[in-house]
Amino acid sequence: MTADEARARDAADPLRHFRERFVLPEGVIYLDGNSLGPLPKATIAAMAHVTQQQWGARMVRAWNEGWMDSPQRIGGKIARLIGARPDEVIVTDSTSSNLFKLLVAALQQNPARRTILTEAGNFPSDLYVAQGAARCVAGARLHSVPRGELLGALSNDTAVLLLTHVHYKTAQAFDLELYSTCAREAGALTLWDLSHSTGAIPVNLGAAGADLAVGCGYKYLNGGPGAPAYLYVNSKWQDILTSPLNGWLGHAEPFAFAEPYRPASGISRWLNGTPPMLAMAALESGVDLALEADIVDLAQKSAALFTCFANIGAALGLECVSPLDAASRGSHISFRHADAYPLSQALIARGVIGDFRAPDIIRFGLTPLYIGFQEVVRAGEILREILTSGAWRDARYSVRAAVT
Amino acid sequence: MTADEARARDAADPLRHFRERFVLPEGVIYLDGNSLGPLPKATIAAMAHVTQQQWGARMVRAWNEGWMDSPQRIGGKIARLIGARPDEVIVTDSTSSNLFKLLVAALQQNPARRTILTEAGNFPSDLYVAQGAARCVAGARLHSVPRGELLGALSNDTAVLLLTHVHYKTAQAFDLELYSTCAREAGALTLWDLSHSTGAIPVNLGAAGADLAVGCGYKYLNGGPGAPAYLYVNSKWQDILTSPLNGWLGHAEPFAFAEPYRPASGISRWLNGTPPMLAMAALESGVDLALEADIVDLAQKSAALFTCFANIGAALGLECVSPLDAASRGSHISFRHADAYPLSQALIARGVIGDFRAPDIIRFGLTPLYIGFQEVVRAGEILREILTSGAWRDARYSVRAAVT
Repeated sequence: MTADEARARDAADPLRHFRERFVLPEGVIYLDGNSLGPLPKATIAAMAHVTQQQWGARMVRAWNEGWMDSPQRIGGKIARLIGARPDEVIVTDSTSSNLFKLLVAALQQNPARRTILTEAGNFPSDLYVAQGAARCVAGARLHSVPRGELLGALSNDTAVLLLTHVHYKTAQAFDLELYSTCAREAGALTLWDLSHSTGAIPVNLGAAGADLAVGCGYKYLNGGPGAPAYLYVNSKWQDILTSPLNGWLGHAEPFAFAEPYRPASGISRWLNGTPPMLAMAALESGVDLALEADIVDLAQKSAALFTCFANIGAALGLECVSPLDAASRGSHISFRHADAYPLSQALIARGVIGDFRAPDIIRFGLTPLYIGFQEVVRAGEILREILTSGAWRDARYSVRAAVT
Repeated sequence: MTADEARARDAADPLRHFRERFVLPEGVIYLDGNSLGPLPKATIAAMAHVTQQQWGARMVRAWNEGWMDSPQRIGGKIARLIGARPDEVIVTDSTSSNLFKLLVAALQQNPARRTILTEAGNFPSDLYVAQGAARCVAGARLHSVPRGELLGALSNDTAVLLLTHVHYKTAQAFDLELYSTCAREAGALTLWDLSHSTGAIPVNLGAAGADLAVGCGYKYLNGGPGAPAYLYVNSKWQDILTSPLNGWLGHAEPFAFAEPYRPASGISRWLNGTPPMLAMAALESGVDLALEADIVDLAQKSAALFTCFANIGAALGLECVSPLDAASRGSHISFRHADAYPLSQALIARGVIGDFRAPDIIRFGLTPLYIGFQEVVRAGEILREILTSGAWRDARYSVRAAVT
């Protein structure tokens, strides 16, 4: 794509007005919104409001003025992005904690099934959490198999099929409905990690018949660094599964201070401690913005940005590890390169922020809400300059930072 | 105490300058800082900085510029308030999640001991969490006994003695050293909830030989609504206990994306998901302010405020349920009243914000960092007016709000 073509595509983009809704620093081409979404301009005012008008002026009274029901309220908004009913989603804890809660709950509910089945190479944090969850239920175990062997590995011992919808490295996406259906037919629950999906590509948990899901607020939802996570429980399971993390706000009557623990009905039983309201306010602002965009526009633009970047990569001889079929993909593109780390650092030094994933992947988020074709074309030019000049071989680009 | 005497006490208060460091709305006497601490003025700038200069301008790069080590850094600051080594405390998750992690870890570490021993009437959320934790370890159980029977109930089956240092209703405080010592002699670990202690009264976990502790950031640390919590592990246990919540940041090499899970050495293994940086920034601001005050000044003033309010209560014939001995007490005062709820609502309507704790307790936080003698005296006058006029019998004060 030429610069002129890119300009024309941007001018015709139905999402073009969203770009000005974000703080996007000069001199930066931000292709890492799938790691940490940028700051929505509206969030600046939202943070000042929650800090000064709510916490500052109303103090503890603010809990009765919109804070206490924020997990359900924001969950109801996220539900619209993932094909769930408003009362099937709640915002609470971190993605890791929510995964733990749902895995332990599913294992505790059905003692006849002891296996968490997952993909080898799933996001490591999900595997770590699953290992810890398995240690909390007698006889439970984690079983990882290659993607192509998952359906064949479903058995009458499978309690949960734990899958990340869009793979954090390759962007490869599972067929939500196919895997949910096969798991159900095998008597297993599905638990989807939607962290790299929600807000970027269409997700319909209801239509897929998915049982459980979790996801992250700080990627395509632009909810802020370490934003609270969300959790989905299909209504058919809501009165059957119970969380192992029984903080007071999941109680049927948190302010009765009564024992023993009695879980709330519905999705609220997955609450735990007191919601982090400063972070909740930023998340709500990000979700509100995401809800303004049409998911079909987002998916179409994501696919077009991918094709643009894939063509650049092909012309440079880079090995693309992401699926070329848009329907099987999330919204990032990844290349394998023996020196992916120094290459990513050299790009950052030129203002192109993507990220490295060990050991040999360089990854670029193509976030359709605010990234344009001209940026992708310009990033491609810088990538070409670095590759042809060998600039990435400079020793300073090999110094590893804490977060890579 | 007369209004003149109160004015003189405030003028002589070595902590008097801290009051202007907080946003304290006109017309409000805020005696609920033990539920939600008020907004420090410095936090307004801290929130703008983390939002705009860090998230907005630096985006994902901010993780390498002070964000990633914030759990350890802020933990090291809180350590100074609780008599711990800097590398024994970390900020992560919620108080509830941290309790769960430590309880399960302690039970998993010593299969010969299956009992969590706690006080009947401990903060209900802690009891709920302990119930959930017990369900995650084969054979484990929660055993609650009255305060006076705790030491006698320690047995060779006690894995953990779980106690809240300062009781949320009565403010009664356990002798940290006595209970830690007795538990140790019985072969059990102690796990202290310091939510109503840290920042208000002296705490020395090291001197007490305490094993484990958790605490909340939004009470006396003024870290913001639902602030991240902290967790203490005595260094002698750091390489022995492992968290059941294995999010990636507790891994020895989170960015190696390697399996299986391998816990970090030291306190970092208690990390879980990605830290919520907007909330972390507010907490750090609150902790920095708390560190400026002398804990001896705080404790002395807390005791004097208590005496002042206790005398008011006695003159009004109210039943005080808090210990009169300052050494056995936290920093709030509670009265039992059959109509505690409407009474608390009538007080709030007059600008005196305390809180109700079911079924019959009215509670006032005497937070020495920013509450003065004149306010306590004025609150006492309003309390007297309401009690003598019967204003609290007005029907509108009986309508229950969500948060009481």
